[in-house]
Amino acid sequence: MSIHGGDVYRNHVAVDFSINVNPLGAPESVKEALHRAVDMCGRYPDMEAESLREAVSSFLGVSKEYLLFGNGASELLMTIVHGIKPGKVVIPAPSFYGYEYAAKSADSEIVYYEMKQENNFCVTGDIYRILTEDVDLLFLANPGNPIGNLLDMEMIKKLLLHCRDKGIYVVIDESFIEFCGESFSFLPEITRFENLILVRSFTKIFAIPGVRLGYLVCKNKAVHTKIAGQLPEWNLSCFAQEAGCICAGQAEFIEKTKTYIKTERRFMEEGFRRKGFQMFPSAANFITTYCDIPLYEKLLEKGILIRDCSNFKGLGKGFYRIAVKNRKENETLIRTMEAL
Amino acid sequence: MSIHGGDVYRNHVAVDFSINVNPLGAPESVKEALHRAVDMCGRYPDMEAESLREAVSSFLGVSKEYLLFGNGASELLMTIVHGIKPGKVVIPAPSFYGYEYAAKSADSEIVYYEMKQENNFCVTGDIYRILTEDVDLLFLANPGNPIGNLLDMEMIKKLLLHCRDKGIYVVIDESFIEFCGESFSFLPEITRFENLILVRSFTKIFAIPGVRLGYLVCKNKAVHTKIAGQLPEWNLSCFAQEAGCICAGQAEFIEKTKTYIKTERRFMEEGFRRKGFQMFPSAANFITTYCDIPLYEKLLEKGILIRDCSNFKGLGKGFYRIAVKNRKENETLIRTMEAL
Repeated sequence: MSIHGGDVYRNHVAVDFSINVNPLGAPESVKEALHRAVDMCGRYPDMEAESLREAVSSFLGVSKEYLLFGNGASELLMTIVHGIKPGKVVIPAPSFYGYEYAAKSADSEIVYYEMKQENNFCVTGDIYRILTEDVDLLFLANPGNPIGNLLDMEMIKKLLLHCRDKGIYVVIDESFIEFCGESFSFLPEITRFENLILVRSFTKIFAIPGVRLGYLVCKNKAVHTKIAGQLPEWNLSCFAQEAGCICAGQAEFIEKTKTYIKTERRFMEEGFRRKGFQMFPSAANFITTYCDIPLYEKLLEKGILIRDCSNFKGLGKGFYRIAVKNRKENETLIRTMEAL
Repeated sequence: MSIHGGDVYRNHVAVDFSINVNPLGAPESVKEALHRAVDMCGRYPDMEAESLREAVSSFLGVSKEYLLFGNGASELLMTIVHGIKPGKVVIPAPSFYGYEYAAKSADSEIVYYEMKQENNFCVTGDIYRILTEDVDLLFLANPGNPIGNLLDMEMIKKLLLHCRDKGIYVVIDESFIEFCGESFSFLPEITRFENLILVRSFTKIFAIPGVRLGYLVCKNKAVHTKIAGQLPEWNLSCFAQEAGCICAGQAEFIEKTKTYIKTERRFMEEGFRRKGFQMFPSAANFITTYCDIPLYEKLLEKGILIRDCSNFKGLGKGFYRIAVKNRKENETLIRTMEAL
């Protein structure tokens, strides 16, 4: 079994519910930018990513100096740990595998914080217990993956203060935040907390995982310098830079997506509940269910790929993550599932 | 002054002789592949890069298991040092800045090996003096950059033996080798030397620096695993993978380029010699000259960007690297230079 979803290269799949990108697909203007970029690839991409920096800075309303771009959020996760060199890292479980992968690449000691099923796999007060002086970095996700639950804003603000006092950097991965809404983002806290690093992605909301583009937001200049020194030179392709400039102007598209996902997620959740499967509260473009039939294998027989979560630390057999796709595809899934 | 060439983003430039990509431009079939890739970027790129691996493996005639792909050769340089974690690194001077950048990112101690002007900036026998037991990694370039000179095959084979005995990994950067000819490559030595890592690039020969695609060849499985664990997940865009598959079939294009470059390089060299500027022997698609007029500034006034090499360690004021471009552009440069 793969450690990530989306392996359509080694599975015969008609519909892929294992990866979580915008079911509306990339905006036409983004595709046009990618075609334009073909004619630009004869020159080295801008090492400073000036146009992209300008565009994202004004789109988010954050200082240009706070931004750093990566060849996907995954590159930023790697360079954050290489830059900060944390001796001890705390990772909630269940979480995206990338945090563990990054921490291991820097030989950091990993301590897992168990998010309990009885708490719907949320971060709760018992996390303080392990956030001691010797911890250097904490990974959080907002919303979490694979559950899709948002962090408790007030609780995490207090946690950020605690971490600041203890000298702990906090990385909040907001790769899926646009599906939930900017009002749930920790972006406004960036100016307050120099120990906060927000990681964001263009991949999911703009449905361009093949392009590779992510960014981080951090106020701390010293941290910036450390991380920047770990990024390969010319790490952003001309495709990433061209597409990114256009993406950073798609407020309407994001709004439309948010509404669409809300409706479709509800439609999916109802289907799963009718079937008697257990659901966990999600604000994102994917849902996680628990059931005691071999759902992954049974759906794959019908050409539908979902994410078997049994290899997520902190989950186990019976948990499955399913993307929220378009109505036609979602109906196919629900209908197929009902017939199992 | 920039540490690299190609900064056309912050200079007003009509012709750019500061970067060294194929003056024939990317083959049409490669551009077509890039356009096709736009329709693929809605799914995650293949983490295993199976098709690309297959294509490059049969093009080079090396085992698939020996290959590792990077988001540009620059990413591979970073991941090599992060994977091997060398305490002490030897870097010849003058060299491409990327080796120093990579070694610094891994906090390695750097020892510079001075290639002397009296030896035309070649690696000579005096390198043995610093390749002692405590050295862990040696960077070499074939051809060298900025000079364009090839390594002495017989001398380096003996050096590889010495390094193997001393436990020194040798990275040979062959980013420009296709312009010189495969017969000068160390690729056939890969099966003999488990301490040898060849780094190659698609950027230069196929004129696609905006795409970001490089690869390394190494027989040593343990080293492979270490380096692979430092590569971000999904590090190759769908553009890199699609274009790469087509590039790995362009034997004729490479042959044509080689002949073209040979003629044009001679044309350029003659022009510089007529002007009385000092030349160094190059087998590559760029030449380096020494003169005592401020050539960089004077050409930039005319809209021509060349690479001022005064910030190359081991060179200094008066050295300039100039790309070999197409006849029309080369004529423009020679004519402009003659009129200075």
